[in-house]
Amino acid sequence: MSTIRVAVAGATGYAGEELIRLLLVHPHVQLTHLAASAKWERPVAVSTVFPRFARQCDLPLESLDPQRLAASCDAAFLALPHGVAMTLVPALLKAGKQVIDLSGDFRLKDAALFTQWYGKPHTHPELLGEAVYGITELSAQAIAKARLVANPGCYATSVILACAPLLKAGLVEPDWIVIDAKSGLTGAGRKSETQLLFAEMHENLWAYKVNHHQHVPEIEQALAPFAGGAPLGLCFVPHVVPLNRGILSSIYLRLVKPATWEQVDALYRDFYRHAPFVRLRPKDQWPQLRDVEGTNYCDLAFAVDAAQRGLILSSAIDNLLKGAAGQAVQNLNLMRGWPETAGLL
Amino acid sequence: MSTIRVAVAGATGYAGEELIRLLLVHPHVQLTHLAASAKWERPVAVSTVFPRFARQCDLPLESLDPQRLAASCDAAFLALPHGVAMTLVPALLKAGKQVIDLSGDFRLKDAALFTQWYGKPHTHPELLGEAVYGITELSAQAIAKARLVANPGCYATSVILACAPLLKAGLVEPDWIVIDAKSGLTGAGRKSETQLLFAEMHENLWAYKVNHHQHVPEIEQALAPFAGGAPLGLCFVPHVVPLNRGILSSIYLRLVKPATWEQVDALYRDFYRHAPFVRLRPKDQWPQLRDVEGTNYCDLAFAVDAAQRGLILSSAIDNLLKGAAGQAVQNLNLMRGWPETAGLL
Amino acid sequence: MSTIRVAVAGATGYAGEELIRLLLVHPHVQLTHLAASAKWERPVAVSTVFPRFARQCDLPLESLDPQRLAASCDAAFLALPHGVAMTLVPALLKAGKQVIDLSGDFRLKDAALFTQWYGKPHTHPELLGEAVYGITELSAQAIAKARLVANPGCYATSVILACAPLLKAGLVEPDWIVIDAKSGLTGAGRKSETQLLFAEMHENLWAYKVNHHQHVPEIEQALAPFAGGAPLGLCFVPHVVPLNRGILSSIYLRLVKPATWEQVDALYRDFYRHAPFVRLRPKDQWPQLRDVEGTNYCDLAFAVDAAQRGLILSSAIDNLLKGAAGQAVQNLNLMRGWPETAGLL
Amino acid sequence: MSTIRVAVAGATGYAGEELIRLLLVHPHVQLTHLAASAKWERPVAVSTVFPRFARQCDLPLESLDPQRLAASCDAAFLALPHGVAMTLVPALLKAGKQVIDLSGDFRLKDAALFTQWYGKPHTHPELLGEAVYGITELSAQAIAKARLVANPGCYATSVILACAPLLKAGLVEPDWIVIDAKSGLTGAGRKSETQLLFAEMHENLWAYKVNHHQHVPEIEQALAPFAGGAPLGLCFVPHVVPLNRGILSSIYLRLVKPATWEQVDALYRDFYRHAPFVRLRPKDQWPQLRDVEGTNYCDLAFAVDAAQRGLILSSAIDNLLKGAAGQAVQNLNLMRGWPETAGLL
Repeated sequence: MSTIRVAVAGATGYAGEELIRLLLVHPHVQLTHLAASAKWERPVAVSTVFPRFARQCDLPLESLDPQRLAASCDAAFLALPHGVAMTLVPALLKAGKQVIDLSGDFRLKDAALFTQWYGKPHTHPELLGEAVYGITELSAQAIAKARLVANPGCYATSVILACAPLLKAGLVEPDWIVIDAKSGLTGAGRKSETQLLFAEMHENLWAYKVNHHQHVPEIEQALAPFAGGAPLGLCFVPHVVPLNRGILSSIYLRLVKPATWEQVDALYRDFYRHAPFVRLRPKDQWPQLRDVEGTNYCDLAFAVDAAQRGLILSSAIDNLLKGAAGQAVQNLNLMRGWPETAGLL
Repeated sequence: MSTIRVAVAGATGYAGEELIRLLLVHPHVQLTHLAASAKWERPVAVSTVFPRFARQCDLPLESLDPQRLAASCDAAFLALPHGVAMTLVPALLKAGKQVIDLSGDFRLKDAALFTQWYGKPHTHPELLGEAVYGITELSAQAIAKARLVANPGCYATSVILACAPLLKAGLVEPDWIVIDAKSGLTGAGRKSETQLLFAEMHENLWAYKVNHHQHVPEIEQALAPFAGGAPLGLCFVPHVVPLNRGILSSIYLRLVKPATWEQVDALYRDFYRHAPFVRLRPKDQWPQLRDVEGTNYCDLAFAVDAAQRGLILSSAIDNLLKGAAGQAVQNLNLMRGWPETAGLL
Repeated sequence: MSTIRVAVAGATGYAGEELIRLLLVHPHVQLTHLAASAKWERPVAVSTVFPRFARQCDLPLESLDPQRLAASCDAAFLALPHGVAMTLVPALLKAGKQVIDLSGDFRLKDAALFTQWYGKPHTHPELLGEAVYGITELSAQAIAKARLVANPGCYATSVILACAPLLKAGLVEPDWIVIDAKSGLTGAGRKSETQLLFAEMHENLWAYKVNHHQHVPEIEQALAPFAGGAPLGLCFVPHVVPLNRGILSSIYLRLVKPATWEQVDALYRDFYRHAPFVRLRPKDQWPQLRDVEGTNYCDLAFAVDAAQRGLILSSAIDNLLKGAAGQAVQNLNLMRGWPETAGLL
Repeated sequence: MSTIRVAVAGATGYAGEELIRLLLVHPHVQLTHLAASAKWERPVAVSTVFPRFARQCDLPLESLDPQRLAASCDAAFLALPHGVAMTLVPALLKAGKQVIDLSGDFRLKDAALFTQWYGKPHTHPELLGEAVYGITELSAQAIAKARLVANPGCYATSVILACAPLLKAGLVEPDWIVIDAKSGLTGAGRKSETQLLFAEMHENLWAYKVNHHQHVPEIEQALAPFAGGAPLGLCFVPHVVPLNRGILSSIYLRLVKPATWEQVDALYRDFYRHAPFVRLRPKDQWPQLRDVEGTNYCDLAFAVDAAQRGLILSSAIDNLLKGAAGQAVQNLNLMRGWPETAGLL
């Protein structure tokens, strides 16, 4: 099978680095271009910035240039800060390229909502309708036909995969969904902020953006169709934990009607019967981050608290893989008609 | 002021080690005896087992012997595995000693409940009524008169201090209290179990004992009086996080009636107006474990989600101090009529 | 190309787990058998013990049985505690299987030396001569013809690769080679020892087995031929550092005669000109563990201290890959005539 | 006993924070002033920046102002970036204040050497002669009479305490002293640099400033008198390890003449017979960072390699205490004639 040419814009962030790692070993692609928003007087070898790629990749890191980006590839991954991708996407689409955007720029359908959560106007609202929100397992058909995929947020992926089957089955009350999410530090990006220093974060733990994290609206938007119109009441509290990679979301719901563990298990297994990257844990065994680290899997487990009609969910992913670069490649696989797992096992 | 003689039984566990550290600098006590359940042919210097105590303490670690223990001290701290303290306490009380037990042996008033949660019969149920459950801030008067204090569990302390004011004020619904608690590894004790190995736990995170941790019944028992008879519905899920010390409990409640952040803040400040070790964080600032590490403080913060009648609490303690050894010393201070903060600042 | 059948004995240790991970994606092998020394009443699915292998491997973990092991495979990897492999190897060789032993059993040529360092007699000293000590880069031809490869120790690999070129060139004094090695915790194995607990090791660091680690004799044996008969004086001090994976060895030597950085660099580049897994860092850039984590690379850097005739080396590997499972697969590749990098990029 | 007024300039760095912690509980001082080089429109409560000091300290953090600083105190601790203290010290001394400077500004006696290592001219070389280099154990008498103490670097403290007794006894060769030092991340300061981010440093380890760290000249200067004029050949390689606090220096020397472990032990015990903060470990027991964490101790151990005339030293300190704030307080104690251990146990 011949390969296509792919580019990564935003190659010096954690997600960009992971995209490079995945794409170097993907059987159907050839990595042809790496760009970053930093300005270099002259291109720098990617292995100078990331010595781990020495002997594996000798591409230069180039300044971000829309023309060069479009010319270099058949498909582009954009792993840039929020607000940058929307300035690049129109030209890429016009040039006939497929685009997978890992930022928040094209996730929300409502431009006003974008402005509310990201603090800036959207420069290309006309593309919001076309962009496909890419939780692969939930929108496979639309992704297969998409020119532009909005790759979901890491927290959002862990929550949406866990909740969709329950809401669709009408099994849980939609009005008070408590999500206590815990993320490693790569989730904060490679930013020089004092609070992200090792000596600040090691032996530390805290809640942040309590109930106003920017992933809230995309979770609501993605889960709404499964809730059948019922208003969703999300209580979403992210926490930063002292580890590099991984998100564990613990989700607390109340059952509308009694259900056994076995019934819920059957419901999940049916819902994800064609999903190679969603794994259900056996009864009373709970996901550990280490079991998904370095993989594109989402591991799910749950318990039923019959006395209180409670349902407790635990959802684990690698935030840089299923939560970013891995799902992005999974989406490319669908967009190109390749096996969903190509380059991901 | 003259000093009293104190002993620590269970001196080789994490809580025991911390008790030694505190008692060595406490102005009103003299540490006279250290015992551990291990059998030594001859006593071993504590600084052989804990080199950090070299030059600071030359007491020997001795095998646990009820007679010697009673003879050695005026007050005894018991930091032993569940089930051991109840075999020692009757003799200590009979000998006129004050006892602070850090295990679960005397926390529950109902012997049947003890058996249900700890898997063994209670050998001295006649003492359960007398034992004072020692959240210092909530039972100061009873502690001041107690012969036997049951020092609360670490998770329980973080949860009870956070919830009691709200329940007392009738501000929150008691029937679905979601507690997502996160603890460092010293909480699991110094036990040689594979799952507690560094290489298993580092870069890892998971939920465990989902909804059936043994601290659940003591939380229910302690909060019940504040709820005025309403049945409590606790959903308690502890998580193990890769750090040494600290517990952060995130608690999710629903308001019975609307309340502003300022009203809730005033309620807490009034409730804890005499409590030197409870600190309220300013609005929109959340507790970090590092700020309570090495201290006896409990740091509290909360947010009101008016739209959904939600109330989100965050409670941080050092599990070995306010969650164990620190609160134990705080309780001794009350039992002896010393300043509550003696030896703890 | 057809595949061969391979087995892993000792599949529940860290090296065994890593072997499974590598062999599942190796293009020329089929994993057919997993054994561990634990006794199970009935076989357990490997994904029960290692949930990360769910959906990827459904082989059972079986009790270690020499007959079944030999029948199951064409080549066997033995990742067992020291002293076990020597009881299995004779039967495997007799059955015509290729064997790669990751323990210390067949590394030393001198049975008396084995007894001195491992504390037990060698039961099959007649095989010590045949076993090839497998630093792949230094013994490629012998490995290609070997039936039995003794896979080197992790520390030893990092040190030997760094020192061999200098000794061969007669550039450094052989009589006082200071090696300060630092290893993550997986190097200690999955053993339930108190000192390996997370809460003991986190925020901690120490030297151990000072100058009497069992890797010393294999380093001496492997480097002796390069030193041309001069007696080697190794001062080897391993340290345990709070991280999971990786070894960084800092090595301090004195030059016999003046040499520039460029001359030494040329010497290394020539020595390793055919070695795909040895990488030299640019001047004044030092290896970081993260750059070799998850890879089979050995990253090397050095500085020349002209004033003092000093030469400082830094050598980084992933202890479970180039230091164990990765090099084992690299050796199998040579034994079978496959590309050296098969399954390792 | 009455107290003196002390100020901390540079209160927002890691050493400054630790100074506050120590001085708040020191029996003979009253903390009266906190300054930092940041510019605030109006003073900020220290507990806003460091919530751990809530309820413990309500001093404001003020902009650095030499006049206010001098007026506020009897003695000042300067924990500022290199190059700032030398602009403040003359006025403080003129105002009759005692000064303990934790930066490198007054450590080197030779102004040219300062310029060479710190990259800027010294503005007050006339004070270099007066400043006392303050390894407390080695210069007690001079410190007791000093107006200005140059508090030693953290690495330097760990190395000088370990090597001085051996050099004084003429027991080791001075011309090739290999020092492999390992430091936690607080040693790098609270600086917003990408390489100090948690996600860069966790699971990582590397050597840096190989043989050209700015602590080299102060080690040479401090050890020279003990070497009796013999030129010292230091090979000093610092490493950054993923932990918050602590330095472990492993030092490799060669004996001039044979010596037993017992002889060397006796030499150290005699040398440090009056030093309350230097502890010798028993034979074959090696210092662990955790045993000095949070303390002002320096723990030392060593091994003699008779066959190779080698002597291996291990020296552990808490870099923020004996390596910075702790030794600074220890020095103040001597300058004021208080017990050396006041406020440090």
